[in-house]
Amino acid sequence: MSIALHPIENIPLIEAGDDLGAILIAALEGGDHPPRDGDIVVLCQKIVSKAEGRSVKISDVEPSPLAIQVAASADNKDPRIAELVLRNSTRIVMMKHGHMIVETGPGWVCANAGIDASNTGDDDIALLLPEDPDASAARLAESLSRHFGVAIATIISDTWGRPWRVGLVDFAIGVAGINPLRDLRGGVDMDGRELHHTVNADADAITAAAGLLMGKDAGIPAVLVRGYSAPGGDGSGADLIRDLDTDLFR
Amino acid sequence: MSIALHPIENIPLIEAGDDLGAILIAALEGGDHPPRDGDIVVLCQKIVSKAEGRSVKISDVEPSPLAIQVAASADNKDPRIAELVLRNSTRIVMMKHGHMIVETGPGWVCANAGIDASNTGDDDIALLLPEDPDASAARLAESLSRHFGVAIATIISDTWGRPWRVGLVDFAIGVAGINPLRDLRGGVDMDGRELHHTVNADADAITAAAGLLMGKDAGIPAVLVRGYSAPGGDGSGADLIRDLDTDLFR
Repeated sequence: MSIALHPIENIPLIEAGDDLGAILIAALEGGDHPPRDGDIVVLCQKIVSKAEGRSVKISDVEPSPLAIQVAASADNKDPRIAELVLRNSTRIVMMKHGHMIVETGPGWVCANAGIDASNTGDDDIALLLPEDPDASAARLAESLSRHFGVAIATIISDTWGRPWRVGLVDFAIGVAGINPLRDLRGGVDMDGRELHHTVNADADAITAAAGLLMGKDAGIPAVLVRGYSAPGGDGSGADLIRDLDTDLFR
Repeated sequence: MSIALHPIENIPLIEAGDDLGAILIAALEGGDHPPRDGDIVVLCQKIVSKAEGRSVKISDVEPSPLAIQVAASADNKDPRIAELVLRNSTRIVMMKHGHMIVETGPGWVCANAGIDASNTGDDDIALLLPEDPDASAARLAESLSRHFGVAIATIISDTWGRPWRVGLVDFAIGVAGINPLRDLRGGVDMDGRELHHTVNADADAITAAAGLLMGKDAGIPAVLVRGYSAPGGDGSGADLIRDLDTDLFR
């Protein structure tokens, strides 16, 4: 069984209050790949955050002494952005040379609490991550599935760096309609031996793949993934967050 | 432009000394997707390591006091495997509760130095990572490209856990024929603003995607990736390894 990734074209620039479900439906109906049962739509968080009005006026932010200190330790980091990162952090995982790797939302660990001040179309606007990407994903999956009369799953992605590795990759922060994990324990490997430890983060792999077509310069904020044979069951993006007590790096 | 992932079927169990290039050529010729210019073949490290005879007889390994100590701190970890991990490590990144997250090879950071004792087809055999996956990838890309008369890139993958996240994902450890990084700096985002910090680890994303078809129980050790528009230029898997001095977590 093959997997295909198709960019979803003709999605306009999104603004606060836009009905993302309706916009996706229009783009999919106008596209070459009418949705089929089992398709997955991956959307970048930016358009979800924009539609949900998750923007903050940077000029309204009063930086704390800590934020000023952190920003000063970096080359051109805006202390007001540092302040927004601190306000949106539940834990500081690593803070060094102005880098702020923090825990945010339900437990995501990423740089700058996922706050985007580079690509929001307005120099004075910072964009926060969606409040509840799993709920946003569920709403979108529901509208798409209802409209097209087939089961369509959704994933909301964000673009993060990784420890030890160069370069950014897209990760799943909101998931609806599929189980983000493929549990192979109890199955057998290619030599017929039983597997004991293997749980694959399929939703992250699907999201990374979609990211190949969503390179920030491509203007493609959503991708249709076809042919993924879901392990069945449902789940959420939160299932991909490691518990603190099993995490060696937090 | 869409991307397609096709499993490469009918690859036999690989043994030491096998000509992996010839085996891949036969599988591709017998398959539904004859290679085209620009295709990427992703192979799991296991078949590369097996073909290159990277196996160690576990019963020949004499565990050191440290290995015995480490194994004792875990539930059923074989001290001889712990010893092999130590012998194949260039740095201990995290060692806790029997977990061994180490630096190995040219600088990969992964659990147990990537040593595979679960899926080698023999209870007394542990499989080490390929000695030089970039060289292995280059040899395979060369044979495939020469035989089919088109440019075929290759990626050798391994399956690793991630800090902060649940579940395993495939990463690129050997790359030939593409640039593993897509440098977007200087480009513009969807709002027409210049990008400053974005370098995407495309080879890791391609590899994660291929992993969706290589779930350990699927018996699919290789995947053909079609439609990826390479950023041009060449590179190696080593390009994906973060330098120690820019790494906040090593």
